[in-house]
Amino acid sequence: MRVLVSNINVGRVAITDGMDEAAVDLLIEAGHEVVAKHYPVDELLSGVLGGFDAVVVRSATKITSEVIKCSSTTGSSLGFIGRAGVGVDNIDIKSATESGILVCNTPAASTRSVVELTIGHFLASTRGIARADRSLREGKWLKKELKGTEIGGKRLGLVGIGRISKGVAEAARALGMEVHGYDPYVTDPPEWINIHHDIDDLFRTCTHVSVHCNLSAETRNLVNSARISMMPGIGLDGTLCGNHIVSCARGGIVDENAAADALESGQLRSLALDVFETEPLGQSRLLDIDGFHGSPHIAASTLEAQSRIGTEMASLLLEYFDTGDVRTSLN
Amino acid sequence: MRVLVSNINVGRVAITDGMDEAAVDLLIEAGHEVVAKHYPVDELLSGVLGGFDAVVVRSATKITSEVIKCSSTTGSSLGFIGRAGVGVDNIDIKSATESGILVCNTPAASTRSVVELTIGHFLASTRGIARADRSLREGKWLKKELKGTEIGGKRLGLVGIGRISKGVAEAARALGMEVHGYDPYVTDPPEWINIHHDIDDLFRTCTHVSVHCNLSAETRNLVNSARISMMPGIGLDGTLCGNHIVSCARGGIVDENAAADALESGQLRSLALDVFETEPLGQSRLLDIDGFHGSPHIAASTLEAQSRIGTEMASLLLEYFDTGDVRTSLN
Repeated sequence: MRVLVSNINVGRVAITDGMDEAAVDLLIEAGHEVVAKHYPVDELLSGVLGGFDAVVVRSATKITSEVIKCSSTTGSSLGFIGRAGVGVDNIDIKSATESGILVCNTPAASTRSVVELTIGHFLASTRGIARADRSLREGKWLKKELKGTEIGGKRLGLVGIGRISKGVAEAARALGMEVHGYDPYVTDPPEWINIHHDIDDLFRTCTHVSVHCNLSAETRNLVNSARISMMPGIGLDGTLCGNHIVSCARGGIVDENAAADALESGQLRSLALDVFETEPLGQSRLLDIDGFHGSPHIAASTLEAQSRIGTEMASLLLEYFDTGDVRTSLN
Repeated sequence: MRVLVSNINVGRVAITDGMDEAAVDLLIEAGHEVVAKHYPVDELLSGVLGGFDAVVVRSATKITSEVIKCSSTTGSSLGFIGRAGVGVDNIDIKSATESGILVCNTPAASTRSVVELTIGHFLASTRGIARADRSLREGKWLKKELKGTEIGGKRLGLVGIGRISKGVAEAARALGMEVHGYDPYVTDPPEWINIHHDIDDLFRTCTHVSVHCNLSAETRNLVNSARISMMPGIGLDGTLCGNHIVSCARGGIVDENAAADALESGQLRSLALDVFETEPLGQSRLLDIDGFHGSPHIAASTLEAQSRIGTEMASLLLEYFDTGDVRTSLN
């Protein structure tokens, strides 16, 4: 649903989780007022955002239904919520729509960064790069223990087929992998991706699985004990390469406890996660397991992605202030 | 020089640093005697290899001029030294030739494994994967500190253009890098690799450098303080990505002390090494630097590479025992 609001030519913008400097400059040069400040939950719940025309968040600020309600009282001008990045699970879009507030994200800007981290995590997992470095720092030379396997000649299964997974698919194909995919919502997958209409079938086929879907009731714990146990452990090329899972998507899609069990039993040889059920990750069984390595939700944390995200968000804001609408809003 | 020896139909083979089981079985099935045993230096210097027709080593056994001389006395039958792998800097080929002994390696078998580790090291370096995992295990969530850069849109400089670096070049190109190369000995580089005839020019051009040459008097400390200081720090795409070096070639080509200085000064943002001046690596300044990560000489340590190396070496041995010669020997 497209929500039209009255034309506002000069606006006040709250940037609560940071944004690329060059993008902030673009807004200021266009005459808008920018307040870059992180607001704690109690200030959000006291309606502080109602004093702005637009707010731009990343993942730290949670725009809940309550926050939206108290920012949409009479006299409030909030009409635009921007997510500088992709995932909008921290924004209650339904409530925003009901309050006549546009929600926009920057879906394409971080694609290449996420693709590179995904491939990097597979190559690091299958060769034990994090463990290798850790052992060198502990004064150990684990040359014999660190026998790995190649990703070339193996089947990669993509859970979700969108911008990012298509990029991962292209890179993986260039590295000699056969690419498989599952996505009940995709309409035109590239013809060279082998499509599975049953997700269990994808897990039965692939030794390497990469997660690229949103977190929803449908996808929570989608990578669970039953599906991990279906993975074949033997590559397309006949190598006993074991099974390997990477997720740079959202925490909660991979059942971390089930994955830890599978790592301990050997059914899973490696697991690399950039996202976790609870972030920041505190204590976790996974951290005592050599076949696991992780990163602190950095898939979009590159200079290039942050620059593209900023430029794209600034351009959405300028469009909103110029026309009162955004052609690519999520509601 | 091709060295012809008398036809030996059934031979005794010493395998001193291990070889893939399936390959050992091939030799035994063909009727040859295989002794798989690591010999300490004193036994090598007492001429123990003279009692074999062929010896297969990896990198641990050093076949020096002295070892060859004492294994080539009257009555000795040693006519074949096989290197299960690529690098032959642990074998004195000149002495072997003088003693009429063939030297063979398996140059193609580990290519894909080395290519994957090289790309993996670049992606791990530029995103801080080893540091990310280490910090998670220390209970830290370094999301803000771990802002990385993409390799896409950057210039990759290859020092040495052979099988491996061509594979790296293809993968890097698929990931969006512009590929440059330097090799004074190469005759037919792929036309899409930008060739530099001056190595300093390669370093002046490229933010990312990967080492793929042999260790020789000419290449020792080739990556030194002067050349690192020439690297531009700004990518083809304008990103201030810093400079990044990977070596999965041979220790001694990268001056480790100079690289540590450059990491500390910021001229080098990351360094990933699979090979070291001294192996096993003991104490090193590098191990206290976050921009460094390493692995214990595992570039060829995959199930696939070891299987291909074994099959290729067994086939070379069978050719030698059948014909007394090997068409692809190194001397």
